Amino acid sequence: MGSTFGHLFRISTFGESHGGGVGVVIDGCPPLIEISAEEIQVELDRRRPGQSKITTPRNEADHCEILSGIVDGKTLGTPIAIMVRNKDQRSQDYTEMAVKYRPSHADATYDAKYGIRAVAGGGRSSARETIGRVAAGAIAKKILQQSGVEIVAYVKQIKDLEAAIDPNTVTLDQVESNIVRCPDPDCAEAMIDLIQKTGGQGDSIGGVVECVARQVPMGLGEPVFDKLEADLAKAVMSLPATKGFEIGSGFAGTRMTGSEHNDEFYTDESGRLRTVTNRSGGVQGGISNGENIVIRVAFKPTATIRKEQKTVTNTGEAVTLAAKGRHDPCVLPRAVPMVEAMVALVLCDHLLRQRGQCG
Amino acid sequence: MGSTFGHLFRISTFGESHGGGVGVVIDGCPPLIEISAEEIQVELDRRRPGQSKITTPRNEADHCEILSGIVDGKTLGTPIAIMVRNKDQRSQDYTEMAVKYRPSHADATYDAKYGIRAVAGGGRSSARETIGRVAAGAIAKKILQQSGVEIVAYVKQIKDLEAAIDPNTVTLDQVESNIVRCPDPDCAEAMIDLIQKTGGQGDSIGGVVECVARQVPMGLGEPVFDKLEADLAKAVMSLPATKGFEIGSGFAGTRMTGSEHNDEFYTDESGRLRTVTNRSGGVQGGISNGENIVIRVAFKPTATIRKEQKTVTNTGEAVTLAAKGRHDPCVLPRAVPMVEAMVALVLCDHLLRQRGQCG
Amino acid sequence: MGSTFGHLFRISTFGESHGGGVGVVIDGCPPLIEISAEEIQVELDRRRPGQSKITTPRNEADHCEILSGIVDGKTLGTPIAIMVRNKDQRSQDYTEMAVKYRPSHADATYDAKYGIRAVAGGGRSSARETIGRVAAGAIAKKILQQSGVEIVAYVKQIKDLEAAIDPNTVTLDQVESNIVRCPDPDCAEAMIDLIQKTGGQGDSIGGVVECVARQVPMGLGEPVFDKLEADLAKAVMSLPATKGFEIGSGFAGTRMTGSEHNDEFYTDESGRLRTVTNRSGGVQGGISNGENIVIRVAFKPTATIRKEQKTVTNTGEAVTLAAKGRHDPCVLPRAVPMVEAMVALVLCDHLLRQRGQCG
Amino acid sequence: MGSTFGHLFRISTFGESHGGGVGVVIDGCPPLIEISAEEIQVELDRRRPGQSKITTPRNEADHCEILSGIVDGKTLGTPIAIMVRNKDQRSQDYTEMAVKYRPSHADATYDAKYGIRAVAGGGRSSARETIGRVAAGAIAKKILQQSGVEIVAYVKQIKDLEAAIDPNTVTLDQVESNIVRCPDPDCAEAMIDLIQKTGGQGDSIGGVVECVARQVPMGLGEPVFDKLEADLAKAVMSLPATKGFEIGSGFAGTRMTGSEHNDEFYTDESGRLRTVTNRSGGVQGGISNGENIVIRVAFKPTATIRKEQKTVTNTGEAVTLAAKGRHDPCVLPRAVPMVEAMVALVLCDHLLRQRGQCG
Repeated sequence: MGSTFGHLFRISTFGESHGGGVGVVIDGCPPLIEISAEEIQVELDRRRPGQSKITTPRNEADHCEILSGIVDGKTLGTPIAIMVRNKDQRSQDYTEMAVKYRPSHADATYDAKYGIRAVAGGGRSSARETIGRVAAGAIAKKILQQSGVEIVAYVKQIKDLEAAIDPNTVTLDQVESNIVRCPDPDCAEAMIDLIQKTGGQGDSIGGVVECVARQVPMGLGEPVFDKLEADLAKAVMSLPATKGFEIGSGFAGTRMTGSEHNDEFYTDESGRLRTVTNRSGGVQGGISNGENIVIRVAFKPTATIRKEQKTVTNTGEAVTLAAKGRHDPCVLPRAVPMVEAMVALVLCDHLLRQRGQCG
Repeated sequence: MGSTFGHLFRISTFGESHGGGVGVVIDGCPPLIEISAEEIQVELDRRRPGQSKITTPRNEADHCEILSGIVDGKTLGTPIAIMVRNKDQRSQDYTEMAVKYRPSHADATYDAKYGIRAVAGGGRSSARETIGRVAAGAIAKKILQQSGVEIVAYVKQIKDLEAAIDPNTVTLDQVESNIVRCPDPDCAEAMIDLIQKTGGQGDSIGGVVECVARQVPMGLGEPVFDKLEADLAKAVMSLPATKGFEIGSGFAGTRMTGSEHNDEFYTDESGRLRTVTNRSGGVQGGISNGENIVIRVAFKPTATIRKEQKTVTNTGEAVTLAAKGRHDPCVLPRAVPMVEAMVALVLCDHLLRQRGQCG
Repeated sequence: MGSTFGHLFRISTFGESHGGGVGVVIDGCPPLIEISAEEIQVELDRRRPGQSKITTPRNEADHCEILSGIVDGKTLGTPIAIMVRNKDQRSQDYTEMAVKYRPSHADATYDAKYGIRAVAGGGRSSARETIGRVAAGAIAKKILQQSGVEIVAYVKQIKDLEAAIDPNTVTLDQVESNIVRCPDPDCAEAMIDLIQKTGGQGDSIGGVVECVARQVPMGLGEPVFDKLEADLAKAVMSLPATKGFEIGSGFAGTRMTGSEHNDEFYTDESGRLRTVTNRSGGVQGGISNGENIVIRVAFKPTATIRKEQKTVTNTGEAVTLAAKGRHDPCVLPRAVPMVEAMVALVLCDHLLRQRGQCG
Repeated sequence: MGSTFGHLFRISTFGESHGGGVGVVIDGCPPLIEISAEEIQVELDRRRPGQSKITTPRNEADHCEILSGIVDGKTLGTPIAIMVRNKDQRSQDYTEMAVKYRPSHADATYDAKYGIRAVAGGGRSSARETIGRVAAGAIAKKILQQSGVEIVAYVKQIKDLEAAIDPNTVTLDQVESNIVRCPDPDCAEAMIDLIQKTGGQGDSIGGVVECVARQVPMGLGEPVFDKLEADLAKAVMSLPATKGFEIGSGFAGTRMTGSEHNDEFYTDESGRLRTVTNRSGGVQGGISNGENIVIRVAFKPTATIRKEQKTVTNTGEAVTLAAKGRHDPCVLPRAVPMVEAMVALVLCDHLLRQRGQCG
């Protein structure tokens, strides 16, 4: 259960890391949206392993095939199915992990839940599952662009290295200008060094991805359970390796007084309702207020590491494990397009919902 | 839209702060659960305004009436409807707010979304909406108790005052031993003083609620979008005034290496699979691992304050506003039962889902 | 489970026939729809028992109270909760039925499903549950009226008495001109006589309700599982006592050839695409084609009768039962507003869905 | 929208008749169910075109590929994706239909809804869409078999030829003993002749499929909107070309009195609650009563025929159309496995739902 996301713009992902392939079915996409396989591929290439010296050397081309729902570069309004074949499978790397539970990984909990698990490559818990999300996100972005919405995510922090970035002005080009996807060039260089050094030690590190959505129309989001920030939180906390979520002032906002924290309103020169500050992060009462939506997502250090760790086998025997296989020492650079995709999916769904209910 | 939460244990809340009443319909509750109106009332009393000198002096008895679904103290398996009448309405307090948008409140976004809004008492954005959640949470807790699950939330931080509390041992009695619901007595006293002082200045403060769920069975949660942490994040981020969510190590975990962060496995004396540390916060790969589930929720300072603020009217005119009415200077003490309720709703839903799919 | 209906215009009903009351929560209603309690009451009065000599003499005023979601006669866009208190309860009529299973009633299956049941009045299986549907349907009708949609249902057949009615021209006034709600006056008189005679014998009869929806815009309904006819079928087959559903040519259409059955297209004088015949019943490929939507619903004879029947007790002992209490000898007259309500709910939901996806 | 079906056992189909392929994603399938591609292929072969002289001569092998969710012949509990490639495409047959609307087909309504449509092969309205349903149904049947449930559908009527078949005893072997899938051999022969003759004339015919589900446990189905008969009605009315649905006594039951129609209870020799007759069709109050579930589905004559018909073009011009391409003169033989699949999907979903809520 739970492989479906969204209410009107609804996606269902499928696929293990090994086996026939992974993919997504998108139901409820508006008709007549122009989208090509190449545009989807661009996003998948940002996500794929092996794209740089700081990601896993697994080389997965992740070539997408559109099975349905798009004819002559236009959506039909019917389900769009996109599939990526699995390749480059070195199942032998997983022989040991078939019996030894990797610490802080999903091996043990899958066994407890289902009584069975696809051992090779982590099965459904593999980050390959996010291929379907990123492909669907590419289409959601195209729909949002028609309303002027622009989404940019970037690496804000790696371990203790924190970048100073203005979410109001940061551009996709700046993000893509280096392999760690941190638009602060000096900080990026330090981050890349740290990732390489840590990976060389057989260890891993985590960090924070920040994401901004600009020009979001007022009125998206629902007053109660489907508050925009609630759906955003669920969206990004469903990505692998996430441990925290903030919108606007986040945890730091808990240290301010109301008179300091409140965003005063004013009317700008064009007569539009605006706020002086944006501690709300673009959402008030669960509904977008037209300011930039700014969120942050905490990613833990990759669980699978080459360093030796204590663990147990699936029969409870104490053992040690030094993971084989090729794993990212830091997921952050590849997490950037994933976060963008999830934010796009939420905003696109709420755009259609708002149009449905309020016309 | 979006007033419904849960997949198998599903609740729908209704009601504005003014008007006939607020309440909840619970669909999918297992039959033969023993629950009385008194047990529900206990939780509502923890949530209600006017319960102490540090909450709003609005005195709302919040007496619940069970309309359906329970006969002779037992659930029937059919929808349980619970209603609380609205009372003590001083709508005149809201005359000014009908035209002046309160900063960081939902007035402006509701107008933008719907073109209409229930002015008195904030309408649907009022914290009265959470009455239905807390009532439903009381029933969810009863169901979870049958599986041994125990949920305790408490105030962890108020502004800069942070309490040191062990989630593994904290008890409900400790939490309820003082009016701020912080189980560290010295810190609690300082918190109470700070809230009173801040309220006296017409200002407000925020903080952090921590919540632990103990004895949760292994196997709850889904691998992809409905990861347990994703549903928990959505649940609590749908509460009013929340700005952030963490599970386990949270944002602090982003500053550790994988070898420091990973929770090594061991087999305990009873043969049960355990982890030495619990940075995962009780969830691995989206699925509960049997360790304590520990989450933290950031609440901003209350938006409605008596201090004068700059804002605009609904026609865009610049004005100042010093809010009238009786508002909590700090929502944290009353947020504790709300967080518990949301956690209970998520766990109960996933308990039934796991039973449905995996038997 | 399963007390919720609709995807964007979504209702949840609650309540047993005895207990606090019955009602409905409507989520996703567009804002700014003008609706009064009186307009809802009109529909409830068409549904209520005791309205004429051919319905049950139980006199239930069924007075509705709007608890939320409507202020000053206008919808807010937030959940609309409507409640009707239970009254006139003669639980003693049900003493015998507490142990004796009524043939073709829900007593035994509820016991098997839940291990418990609200004995008095049939609990959730009572037709009182439909109060919430009819109230919600009244609001759905108002929304549909804005698009010009008009829905009229009527009694088409009672036992072997079949009326000849033109769905293209029949009016609500004609339907309401007699107590059996059959717009053919002569047939209506015969039907009334038959119902009275049958009721006098302690027996019951069934029949067919036909319903037409006119001026439905083209394009409502979905291509696959949520075909308009599929959702209409589910909607009316969820009413108590239904045994069959037809759209357009229905079962009779199975005896025609394709060349006889197909609805040829033409362009009318206003340039609109039309069909010469309407065997499709207004729906092609699951989507409305702009012609009148015509459906028929089979209702079985009321299960609860005063005539003595063989049955068993809840412990399996063979007994006889002659039902006490006051029951409709024929549900058809009161089923007319229920069918209209369900058709309105489906069309309203699909109207919003179409607007959401296709703009 | 609306390409998803089921609440716990949930399927999403995708694919047009032309393009990459068609298929299904099944989410919520219990783990450890044994199922092979061969078992799925058996059902697909019953559905496929070109299987006999009375179906369309289009020869579609419909070879299924399992992309995910099954390893070593066992389900993992994660989404099962199954794909069938499209082949044998003669798009040129559709050149004329690109502009001429086929009477009683979905061409015009798709254009009205989406403003675009996959012309070749009818796109999403093609019966190829049902491949995904039948594949998913094969898995649902395996799950139901573990509870002893057996589902058999058959052709009950073709045009005016009606077979006398006892749903309590009919076997799959009898159904599969002839190409029309009518277990009455004499009637089957007459049906085959009639289909051939009608097809030879460039015309088409319809009929009725009856389906029985035996050994269904008591307690499946929900009291209100998700009544078992309501979900069954939706399920089969979502199949292409359906015009009517009946359960148990159906429309004929409307001509009986209550005392004739009611199913009297008795206790059988094993102490089980039974009914003497089965006019309820195995469902009372929306919930299965342990008797055989018997439904009937009306299929109209195939809309696409070679006979010349009047119609209009997509610009409103009056024309005639004699459809090219290879179409079934009668869909009934191939509809039999589709009906079985839809019944299996509903029962499997309710089996898991019952286990989830009531344990």
